[in-house]
Amino acid sequence: MKGSQEFVQHITPKSENFSQWYTDVILRAELADYAPVRGCMVIRPYGFGIWENIKELLDRRLKATGHKNAYFPLLIPRSFLEKEAEHVEGFAPEVAWVTRAGSEDLAEPLVVRPTSETIIGHMYSKWISSWRDLPVLINQWANVVRWEKATRLFLRTSEFLWQEGHTCHRTEEEAEEETLKILDIYKDFLSEDLAIPVLFGKKTEEEKFAGAITTYCVEALMTDGRALQAGTSHNLGQNFAKVFDISFLDQDNQLKYVWQTSWGVSTRLIGGIIMVHGDERGLALPPKIAPVQVVIVPIMPPPSQEIVIKTANEVFQRLKRTLRVELDAREEYSPGWKFNEWELKGVPVRLEIGPRDVKAGKVVLVQRDTGKKTIVPMENLEEAVTNMLSDVQEGLYRRAKKFMDENTHTSDNYDEFKDIIEAQRGLIFAPWCGNPNCETSIKEESGATIRCIPMDSEPKPGKCVCCGDNTDTWVYFGKAY
Amino acid sequence: MKGSQEFVQHITPKSENFSQWYTDVILRAELADYAPVRGCMVIRPYGFGIWENIKELLDRRLKATGHKNAYFPLLIPRSFLEKEAEHVEGFAPEVAWVTRAGSEDLAEPLVVRPTSETIIGHMYSKWISSWRDLPVLINQWANVVRWEKATRLFLRTSEFLWQEGHTCHRTEEEAEEETLKILDIYKDFLSEDLAIPVLFGKKTEEEKFAGAITTYCVEALMTDGRALQAGTSHNLGQNFAKVFDISFLDQDNQLKYVWQTSWGVSTRLIGGIIMVHGDERGLALPPKIAPVQVVIVPIMPPPSQEIVIKTANEVFQRLKRTLRVELDAREEYSPGWKFNEWELKGVPVRLEIGPRDVKAGKVVLVQRDTGKKTIVPMENLEEAVTNMLSDVQEGLYRRAKKFMDENTHTSDNYDEFKDIIEAQRGLIFAPWCGNPNCETSIKEESGATIRCIPMDSEPKPGKCVCCGDNTDTWVYFGKAY
Repeated sequence: MKGSQEFVQHITPKSENFSQWYTDVILRAELADYAPVRGCMVIRPYGFGIWENIKELLDRRLKATGHKNAYFPLLIPRSFLEKEAEHVEGFAPEVAWVTRAGSEDLAEPLVVRPTSETIIGHMYSKWISSWRDLPVLINQWANVVRWEKATRLFLRTSEFLWQEGHTCHRTEEEAEEETLKILDIYKDFLSEDLAIPVLFGKKTEEEKFAGAITTYCVEALMTDGRALQAGTSHNLGQNFAKVFDISFLDQDNQLKYVWQTSWGVSTRLIGGIIMVHGDERGLALPPKIAPVQVVIVPIMPPPSQEIVIKTANEVFQRLKRTLRVELDAREEYSPGWKFNEWELKGVPVRLEIGPRDVKAGKVVLVQRDTGKKTIVPMENLEEAVTNMLSDVQEGLYRRAKKFMDENTHTSDNYDEFKDIIEAQRGLIFAPWCGNPNCETSIKEESGATIRCIPMDSEPKPGKCVCCGDNTDTWVYFGKAY
Repeated sequence: MKGSQEFVQHITPKSENFSQWYTDVILRAELADYAPVRGCMVIRPYGFGIWENIKELLDRRLKATGHKNAYFPLLIPRSFLEKEAEHVEGFAPEVAWVTRAGSEDLAEPLVVRPTSETIIGHMYSKWISSWRDLPVLINQWANVVRWEKATRLFLRTSEFLWQEGHTCHRTEEEAEEETLKILDIYKDFLSEDLAIPVLFGKKTEEEKFAGAITTYCVEALMTDGRALQAGTSHNLGQNFAKVFDISFLDQDNQLKYVWQTSWGVSTRLIGGIIMVHGDERGLALPPKIAPVQVVIVPIMPPPSQEIVIKTANEVFQRLKRTLRVELDAREEYSPGWKFNEWELKGVPVRLEIGPRDVKAGKVVLVQRDTGKKTIVPMENLEEAVTNMLSDVQEGLYRRAKKFMDENTHTSDNYDEFKDIIEAQRGLIFAPWCGNPNCETSIKEESGATIRCIPMDSEPKPGKCVCCGDNTDTWVYFGKAY
């Protein structure tokens, strides 16, 4: 609670300085704090509560599709990382090295995992020998370390938490099917649980995962007009299978390499939630992942304190059977101060109860997203609150979808393109010839990257926004986090 | 499934070579595997399923007592570790050092956390300023690294998973109360959920946590007669508060240091479960934490395959609404082979269903712990299975308690004492003068350590089992893992 008095007084206006607003919200809502190690953060209980809900909901979706969790070592021998050429090139510049343990120097330095394809590949080669052992559908919830130059709370930190799925399949088709199934799970999870609409598609060669054949992704649009890569699903082909010798005897008695996938989402999603749903008053959390779904604020002018508290407590006991509820009965803070505080913390529904409400057998419900007040009778409180939580969940999604639609432009004019990107007005759907040189020029000249090559759009003739060559391919560009 | 064919054929007899039996069970039941990094292990899906259930059940108990989860960085600056003199002395010999990141040598090496008192203490000093901020009741589920010389799957690995609670309180009394509350939670959790009876009490000065004032512990007796420290709860006094300057303005307007506790249990518990409940046929899992509580094995002689499978599947659908159930309908393995396999994996209840059972509207239930068969009518299957699971849970506890009682000896004769320890016949309740020299002599001469100074026994006159001096204190000795 330290600093509570200040934090409701000031967060930088979002419209004035988005980046400072973002940091203010995180620090003042006590989601996270800076750690004393470069680029690392501490996830505080309120922020970690969001992560626990994310984990639970996504884990359920992954288990329902046959995936099981396991745990692989944090430390990976250097030689493993070096086996897959593209992989080491992509990750070596940002790994942390363990070179000593106890009092001895290690003969072979160990890498603190930046991702686990290599160590998991090594184990899979021990475990898999027959087609009967396939598919292997394993997921891991873990911490990873990537020594980043420029860091930002939740979005890019030297250590972060994530899930990483690693699967092995008998055929190329099955691996591709799995890659797309996971992309679908991510898409549904983001839109249904986090209320975040997404674009989805393929990454270009330039942007794909170091070691993958194809990387698919879900991309979200932040309210400052920048894109956020929210999750990736990689078809690894046989790249790692070949270097780690993950082979099996197929039904036709041939020894074959497995086909692999890997995929992940991370604590970065919390950054996305803040930047998609937050407003001038602070956080706004989708009810499905809010650590507190309803906050009860009793209004207690002197003579009626006892009766109000008693009723507020009854309401609390009733609601907490099925919902995540908090009763804020602190006497050292005024109701108005509490309203601001819980709005800053993004609690979806506030329940106010005062002496007149007690008498009338009613309470006041206030929606965080719209500020709308509703007076509801005590009898069907559970239903009213549950319905309002659904409303907030849907309302947040609708608002985000509308924002994304309004800020996704179509253009094949390079000047216009650059203007939109410079003004940070969102995403651009534009024709691209497929040449990596154009991709690089665009990035250098405008700061925009290809966020994805969509999978659900028909080819249509156009001229590359950069070089003017004829093309059928339209892709989404944006300035990304 | 690789190796499935072998693993039911052989596990080393428990009575012949306990240690090899332990390893065989882990590898062949696919709980874990050796990792390619010294002393590290991979927790495979079946073993991780046990850990997930442990987490869920213990987390529920911790949250019900007001604790919240958070996440602190993996990497800790060397200077932090060095601040508390006893702490660094205890941990420095076994830490892993990150000395390079990306391509640069770090100015200050970082420690991969062996435990998090120091980094959490640093953050608490930022967050706490007033008595209103107290108590702070935070827990973390995390991986830690301790570079151990001699390692053993689950019991002592260079990396392990655990929870570590770290709390701050206004008064010494409150901190002591918290320390004991957690000890109680551990005791109840082990006996009620893991079916493991425990001794509980204080550690001696020699055995306490590096940096604590008092360490309390729960100790369990393995079926080979050795003790296992299953969980510890430390009263840290103001040791860390003073070096990390965690102070607060109290109601009396005085600036004071907080009083702290820390406490943890780890994946070592899985080792305890194996060694307490396992038998010649392999694992035996308490239903509350078994990843599979019921396995359905259809018996399908040729003409009746279809009808048996259909019924087995109906039973599967019915039971999986409330229980963790697996249907093993593989055709390449015989029922007998499957019985052995699932017994090895410790599944508490097996449900057999054959053509005659289908006709009679009955199924056969078999208890893993006793092998007892019960024929139950299809109608009240759910109830029968649920009751049998309770029976197994209680039966495992009863058997373990009986074993512990029978193998806890009382002795004040040093020769007898040494004989018992040498023959590994269990624990000894013996008088001790309180002198660390006697403690050390006993350890050197017999290999036994003081497992705990019990809190629930009356002082009674005796003579120190080592030096013969008069004493009122009786303690538990044992050879420990």
